[in-house]
Amino acid sequence: MKAQTFAQYSLNLRLQLDNVPGVLGNLASAVGEAGGNIFAIEGFVAKGPTLERDIVVNCRDEEHMSEMAKVVAEVDGVQLLDHYDRTFRMHEGGKIEVLSLCPVGDSDDLSMAYSPGVARVCKAIHKDPSVADTHTIRKNTVAIVSDGTAVLGLGDIGPKAAMPVMEGKALLFKEFAGVDAFPICLDVQSPEEVIETVVRLAPTFGGINLEDIKAPGAFEIEAELKRRLDIPIFHDDQHGTAVVTLAGLRNALKVIDKDIADVSIVMSGLGAAGVAVGKMLAQAGAGQIIGADRKGAVHSGQENLTAGKQWFADHTNPDKRSGTLKEILRGADVFIGLSGPDLLETEDVKSMAPDPIIFAMANPDPEIKPEKVAGIASVVATGRSDYPNQINNVLAFPGIFRGALDTMASDITEGMKLSAANAIADSVTEDQLSADFIMPSVFDMSVPQRVAEAVAQTAIDEGVSRQRL
Amino acid sequence: MKAQTFAQYSLNLRLQLDNVPGVLGNLASAVGEAGGNIFAIEGFVAKGPTLERDIVVNCRDEEHMSEMAKVVAEVDGVQLLDHYDRTFRMHEGGKIEVLSLCPVGDSDDLSMAYSPGVARVCKAIHKDPSVADTHTIRKNTVAIVSDGTAVLGLGDIGPKAAMPVMEGKALLFKEFAGVDAFPICLDVQSPEEVIETVVRLAPTFGGINLEDIKAPGAFEIEAELKRRLDIPIFHDDQHGTAVVTLAGLRNALKVIDKDIADVSIVMSGLGAAGVAVGKMLAQAGAGQIIGADRKGAVHSGQENLTAGKQWFADHTNPDKRSGTLKEILRGADVFIGLSGPDLLETEDVKSMAPDPIIFAMANPDPEIKPEKVAGIASVVATGRSDYPNQINNVLAFPGIFRGALDTMASDITEGMKLSAANAIADSVTEDQLSADFIMPSVFDMSVPQRVAEAVAQTAIDEGVSRQRL
Repeated sequence: MKAQTFAQYSLNLRLQLDNVPGVLGNLASAVGEAGGNIFAIEGFVAKGPTLERDIVVNCRDEEHMSEMAKVVAEVDGVQLLDHYDRTFRMHEGGKIEVLSLCPVGDSDDLSMAYSPGVARVCKAIHKDPSVADTHTIRKNTVAIVSDGTAVLGLGDIGPKAAMPVMEGKALLFKEFAGVDAFPICLDVQSPEEVIETVVRLAPTFGGINLEDIKAPGAFEIEAELKRRLDIPIFHDDQHGTAVVTLAGLRNALKVIDKDIADVSIVMSGLGAAGVAVGKMLAQAGAGQIIGADRKGAVHSGQENLTAGKQWFADHTNPDKRSGTLKEILRGADVFIGLSGPDLLETEDVKSMAPDPIIFAMANPDPEIKPEKVAGIASVVATGRSDYPNQINNVLAFPGIFRGALDTMASDITEGMKLSAANAIADSVTEDQLSADFIMPSVFDMSVPQRVAEAVAQTAIDEGVSRQRL
Repeated sequence: MKAQTFAQYSLNLRLQLDNVPGVLGNLASAVGEAGGNIFAIEGFVAKGPTLERDIVVNCRDEEHMSEMAKVVAEVDGVQLLDHYDRTFRMHEGGKIEVLSLCPVGDSDDLSMAYSPGVARVCKAIHKDPSVADTHTIRKNTVAIVSDGTAVLGLGDIGPKAAMPVMEGKALLFKEFAGVDAFPICLDVQSPEEVIETVVRLAPTFGGINLEDIKAPGAFEIEAELKRRLDIPIFHDDQHGTAVVTLAGLRNALKVIDKDIADVSIVMSGLGAAGVAVGKMLAQAGAGQIIGADRKGAVHSGQENLTAGKQWFADHTNPDKRSGTLKEILRGADVFIGLSGPDLLETEDVKSMAPDPIIFAMANPDPEIKPEKVAGIASVVATGRSDYPNQINNVLAFPGIFRGALDTMASDITEGMKLSAANAIADSVTEDQLSADFIMPSVFDMSVPQRVAEAVAQTAIDEGVSRQRL
């Protein structure tokens, strides 16, 4: 079986080709034999003795990329002029810029946008601080705050190395929902320092998106910031994941015609995301939930549980079932994994109730590969874009903040998150809905808009909007 | 004498005019009689019984604006449909936005800009932190940090009310030098908290512009941050002012053909800016400097001086002259004011040496109005755009940071600031130079570029560039 190639490992090769029949064929064959996938070729007209062009080759990994450059350079009639890693090139110089919204073409403009006219706006805010909510970037700007302690699957790599992720998130905020977001990566030593720093930064921002902060510090940070600040605080790793999981589950249950109140759900992985998902499913009226960590089912009576697992002990598993993940999975309707790769076998899924639903969301490798349960599970979802039913936070966070900012919400409530989940689920029409299409495309730009409208309406209904009408 | 009107107090009036001869004349007369200046009229064709249009009227102040709206509404044949304050409208929603530099049109783009490809860049930074200097926004991004304790002439108005100024500064950074700058207004209680917060924020930024922080805290903050961080730290109120003052003085001295080493300079106002100007003039080889505060000349032997004034006591006024500002001004060649309005009389300037130079830079009202020394002083400069020879920091800070970022400078040194001052001064050609033209226009876009090149060259020459060549 040929290994897959990926855009993230794509190589741009600047080549000089002799204008002789067969050179292009030799080149393409050499790339193919070396396992590369030619993704793009710059258009050309074969004039003159040689021609220069760019080709893009997707590779398997970094080693494969180096190998590919060598292979291409050795093809007869081909000279390798230059090559670069397209992912690194994309990140070069950073992924966002700060642009002016005001022209300053002459001294009149300058006197309004800056000194002396700006003093009038300063004085107005000094007199009435709420003017800052409408007449500064607070109106539309969110900080993406991380301490770099739990970045993607990479762990505690520190604030500088976390920057590319937060910049990426900032561009998603803008592209998907028009929210101005700015990365704030903090060199701090404790959750208390994160809290203190964000409180100090709060005059600048209209909202705070917490990101890639390790548990249990992340819980403490979020709770304390919600208490101390009157702007929306949202830990996306927790709540963004919970919102999209609930959205996906709603649609998966529609496919097999079961009601959320009647199903039994087994969860694997009770970290920050898992706890938030558990709480949200309970909020949404899930029938029975049992959470499992590496040691098996969590139930009341256990000792020395983390705050998150204690929640599971107190609020789920009323029958105090114990046992391994595989044991408690028998007869369950739904599996939700936010844990690690390859924890389940085909047999385990066969042991579930009829029409089992599998959400194997461990990244990059799911708890069980979809191909292993084809024809067995009724619906399978993962966190990956190369399988159907990707459960992706980008469907949630841009629209949620759009709705919160539009209404100047002081908080993002449970109700607002439930509205967001419903809006995402409802973005898949009855016609579209199928076992392989429970989630809308992340590139469906109507989704964040629907999410924003639903979240805004709930903010108004629940009275957390600070908007002066 | 008719009072002046200003763009910062300009009113946009949306009017419905009856299409009857004389209405426009009545309107224009009414505005003029009320002291307003019609600045712009939207083009129109007089068709139909009425027409709608926008007119812009510059007024004296806010009260005058309210009055003007009433006056216009009462003109026969005119109906006031709507009106707004153009300065407030310009600031509405904030003055900057955060834009994506990467397209994310499909899942390949997403896999490079964000997950999973972004992890490759994160890992590269984790392995070699200097990769963050080239592959994140640190390459081109500066924080504009303020605690809101000394905002323009408004004083300690707090961080929220300081936001419009920092946003304005951010747009100047971008428009004049392509630097991405982001406002960071801090809710803090002490200089120590500013220092601590900026150190925590440092992974995100390639440079720090300190702004509108009161002395003496500002000195401590700058010194400590320079010690602890390896990115450029620049307190613009001090050093930006010093750079443009030196640039202006160089050209003023050319006009009257005197050498900086031979002139005696009296300074009024020894706050943050005054101290920085004094130090820079000394660096540039000024002959004799005497600084004065409200109590008169500062000289060695005085007690309980602030750190800034102590510098004046230790390094200037070698003859230990004492006396009031007016007394020490007698016989001096140059007056540099960074103090308060109307401190000097025409007689005081007459008491100076022949060909006196007056830099009356108090804002908004200078130490002496230029019209009072017309024909007496050889060169007069102010901080204002409505007189010749405006000494404006915007000529300095964008280019200085551009040069520092381009060379990944670890510091902004005295040498780099001197280079900047020279580049600004040299931007006025021999042909242009005159008593009324010692400073280039702030809209001369070649100035920041020249400043950047000079600063970059000095950074390289002095070995503070961290650029890997």
